[in-house]
Amino acid sequence: MSSGFAAETVLRSRSKTVIIGRSRPFCVIGERINPTGRKKFAEELRAGELSAVAHDAVTQVEAGADVLDVNAGIPLVDEAALLAKMLQAVQAAVDVPICIDSSVIEALEAGLSAYEGRPLVNSVTAEDDRLSEILPLVARHGAAVIGLANDETGIPDTPAARLECARKIVSAAHDHGIARDDVVIDPLAMTVGADPSAVRTTLQTISLIRDELGVNMCLGASNVSFGLPQRHALNAAFLPMAMAAGLTSAIMSTAAPVVDAVRASDLLLGHDEWGANWIAAHRARQATLIQESPVP
Amino acid sequence: MSSGFAAETVLRSRSKTVIIGRSRPFCVIGERINPTGRKKFAEELRAGELSAVAHDAVTQVEAGADVLDVNAGIPLVDEAALLAKMLQAVQAAVDVPICIDSSVIEALEAGLSAYEGRPLVNSVTAEDDRLSEILPLVARHGAAVIGLANDETGIPDTPAARLECARKIVSAAHDHGIARDDVVIDPLAMTVGADPSAVRTTLQTISLIRDELGVNMCLGASNVSFGLPQRHALNAAFLPMAMAAGLTSAIMSTAAPVVDAVRASDLLLGHDEWGANWIAAHRARQATLIQESPVP
Repeated sequence: MSSGFAAETVLRSRSKTVIIGRSRPFCVIGERINPTGRKKFAEELRAGELSAVAHDAVTQVEAGADVLDVNAGIPLVDEAALLAKMLQAVQAAVDVPICIDSSVIEALEAGLSAYEGRPLVNSVTAEDDRLSEILPLVARHGAAVIGLANDETGIPDTPAARLECARKIVSAAHDHGIARDDVVIDPLAMTVGADPSAVRTTLQTISLIRDELGVNMCLGASNVSFGLPQRHALNAAFLPMAMAAGLTSAIMSTAAPVVDAVRASDLLLGHDEWGANWIAAHRARQATLIQESPVP
Repeated sequence: MSSGFAAETVLRSRSKTVIIGRSRPFCVIGERINPTGRKKFAEELRAGELSAVAHDAVTQVEAGADVLDVNAGIPLVDEAALLAKMLQAVQAAVDVPICIDSSVIEALEAGLSAYEGRPLVNSVTAEDDRLSEILPLVARHGAAVIGLANDETGIPDTPAARLECARKIVSAAHDHGIARDDVVIDPLAMTVGADPSAVRTTLQTISLIRDELGVNMCLGASNVSFGLPQRHALNAAFLPMAMAAGLTSAIMSTAAPVVDAVRASDLLLGHDEWGANWIAAHRARQATLIQESPVP
């Protein structure tokens, strides 16, 4: 059974447009501008020092990020003010769309006001109060939104229950005048180190949501490898599976093995016809190697 | 719809047993002992020089191969005699099961006679004359067999037509007293550089055969990247997709990025519970690095 619908989510920076969609190259959303688990970065942000933000923006875009996630969640900090400043720093450094990432309504509001373009709001859930608080904000700013497939009862164990959460979010968004194209569902990637069936559940959820709703999807890909050694290799194996099931974007590491796995999968799945992007990237890499090799 | 059946294919060398199955770690079959496209190796074999065979056997097993493919296909050479000699050389060098690879009946016969254990015969097709020639040989030697999902009309374009070929092979094998557990279907991996939909067709074929027949499957994984740059990266992205769809073994490169992708996928798909193998491999690698680092 298929809904026949295939969403296209349009995001914009000042001058650049990125479209997330099933027949397009995968949308890589750089995960790094986030103080969670980065003690030094969090301390710098707390002290108002934003140079690492600009640096992380530039290096992630150079490494292949199409969009950047920006999160300002530090305990006991005015998250709204900090997020607005971080967004200004990122926009001054690079020209790619941004995923504004906060669980605090006031911070999302400040971020949306500080942003020039059409961002992705990260995120709402299927909880009634979150839907009624966040969706009007998304609609007013003409943004797109990530909807996590969980509700008041927590994270559903089964793909079918996650689908129901997704359905509820799409429906509530519609009631607020937000098109299905602009709702990007997060099917939820949990760590396989805590639950050996976690990835299978996520993959089944992805193909179910693709077939039933046809919306775009985005997940935090690095979650799957949390706590395990050689995380890049695990993330690089997970993303091809998720892409083959129908995932269209991810908030992820831009380490070379992980981005390479995504671009290889684009080619394999027919979203980079005749390998034009793959071959161009290979030639660019070779040209760099030749330039960098010493003159004899 | 699911057949409910989940095959277990038992292969044996002199003293080692390898079982291919859906809930087990993926079976890596080293592809390298094959003169196709290896000019120097072919010349050595033609001259009766087998040291490279032993070397390739050892290095592939060290790199993580569970089984080795052995092919002696050189134009104008007595393939039966050469294959038997190569099998002796491989069995003297390593103790893993072998996949005896030839399209020549006499060579398969000589190989089966030279082999001590329970090999995988590579391969039969759904062509009537191949079925009636090869299956009695497989049955007589108590071997397992790879069945390619093509017939007299060539390689089917659709997953449904490949399934019908597979069904015909399983049925003919049954008529020859070969259990469904011992028929490993090759769903056929074609190069994506020649057909952008090739990988999607292969993935759909894999999940269809898994659901309808429940047999084990094996394919020549390196085919997908033929003619493209950075083949290891493409192969390393293809295998996780194919494993998530239900592939249980592959004749493949044992280059580190490709084997790592397979072992990472074992963990992600729940075939390496709690990551025991993954973590052990990581620790072994670290121990090697410490041993190799110079004493200060």
